[in-house]
Amino acid sequence: MLLCMSLKPEQTLDALNWRYATKQFDPERKIPADAWKVIEETLVLTPSSFGLQPWKFIVVEDPAMREQLLGESWNQSQVTDASHFVVLTSRTDLGSEDIDRWLDCMAKAQAKSLEALAPLKGMIAGFSERMSSQQRQEWNIRQSYIALGQLMTVAAVMGIDACPMEGISNSAYDRLLGIEGSGYATVVACALGYRHESDKYAATPKARFATSEVIERI
Amino acid sequence: MLLCMSLKPEQTLDALNWRYATKQFDPERKIPADAWKVIEETLVLTPSSFGLQPWKFIVVEDPAMREQLLGESWNQSQVTDASHFVVLTSRTDLGSEDIDRWLDCMAKAQAKSLEALAPLKGMIAGFSERMSSQQRQEWNIRQSYIALGQLMTVAAVMGIDACPMEGISNSAYDRLLGIEGSGYATVVACALGYRHESDKYAATPKARFATSEVIERI
Repeated sequence: MLLCMSLKPEQTLDALNWRYATKQFDPERKIPADAWKVIEETLVLTPSSFGLQPWKFIVVEDPAMREQLLGESWNQSQVTDASHFVVLTSRTDLGSEDIDRWLDCMAKAQAKSLEALAPLKGMIAGFSERMSSQQRQEWNIRQSYIALGQLMTVAAVMGIDACPMEGISNSAYDRLLGIEGSGYATVVACALGYRHESDKYAATPKARFATSEVIERI
Repeated sequence: MLLCMSLKPEQTLDALNWRYATKQFDPERKIPADAWKVIEETLVLTPSSFGLQPWKFIVVEDPAMREQLLGESWNQSQVTDASHFVVLTSRTDLGSEDIDRWLDCMAKAQAKSLEALAPLKGMIAGFSERMSSQQRQEWNIRQSYIALGQLMTVAAVMGIDACPMEGISNSAYDRLLGIEGSGYATVVACALGYRHESDKYAATPKARFATSEVIERI
């Protein structure tokens, strides 16, 4: 590991203090292709429970589609103004085919036999079967929130602005994106790019509870 | 060490490729106090929906408590071997007192009057009231997963190892930590520190679906 690969503590803190939920993006500034490619790769690398990766990330490039999504997002201009716009979706259930797909992937990456992974398969299946279908879907959604957290942090340490967006019509997104009935459903969206110099929220002081209210030591 | 104000794309990717769910921590290596202080501050800075921060983070320092939690964590040695161990908890509901607490915090930080924040209060209350109590709890839990995602990413870019832990008995954690009935409940845990040189998982190839399976472009 190269030394410069890590941020010093105070640099990390600076990056997270610098970030904010960007309201106005500069529509003229685009994330460079090499940086965007890395962001996509970091999405792929997101950790998930058991490694199951119960998600797909839809990068909406088509301006006409962005316009349509805008109408299902309380007309928040980030949808169309941001350089990039990602819809995080998650699997609507988790069945044996999902587990098999993951074990196949793991077996290939780690040169293991499926027989050697059978105990793991049993463990995941046991865990999954103890949940209702709704609980499995919710579990998958939680994993997508890990991806959202990582995505916002990755953007911040790379000096890229982001705005997480829960205020969207998930069902309308599913319809517009053509994923209804696909086994994946919209969870949350994230706009990424660069803040517009006129966005007054960039200078608004962060409001956070005091550390003593949020962190407890036992 | 070279100073980096922000990470270049390839450095970010290197950091996320370097991280893994650490199975064996070196019990002799502690995270320096200044770095840990920053990690706590980054937890406080975690973004959340509407900024509500429906969480508390419990840093378990007491070795005897760690031993007790170990027994409720499938005896995964990370609980006791890692330098630091954090239990992420979330609010079990979201009522008007939570919204008021948040608006008070915001009003102070941004020198606004509560009257000026009344429209925001109405919006949050309307959003919250449309959900059932269970949905509100789940919404809060999702926010804690943002914190988990950010925490793992922050650790990675700071060169600190981490292991997210869903395999814990949440109700037993609540009981041991003394938070039963407090309005907060255990969501997930995260061990942080430094990998032991004998942890074979450090060198296990990452298993991720192909980018083309995870990222869709529209």
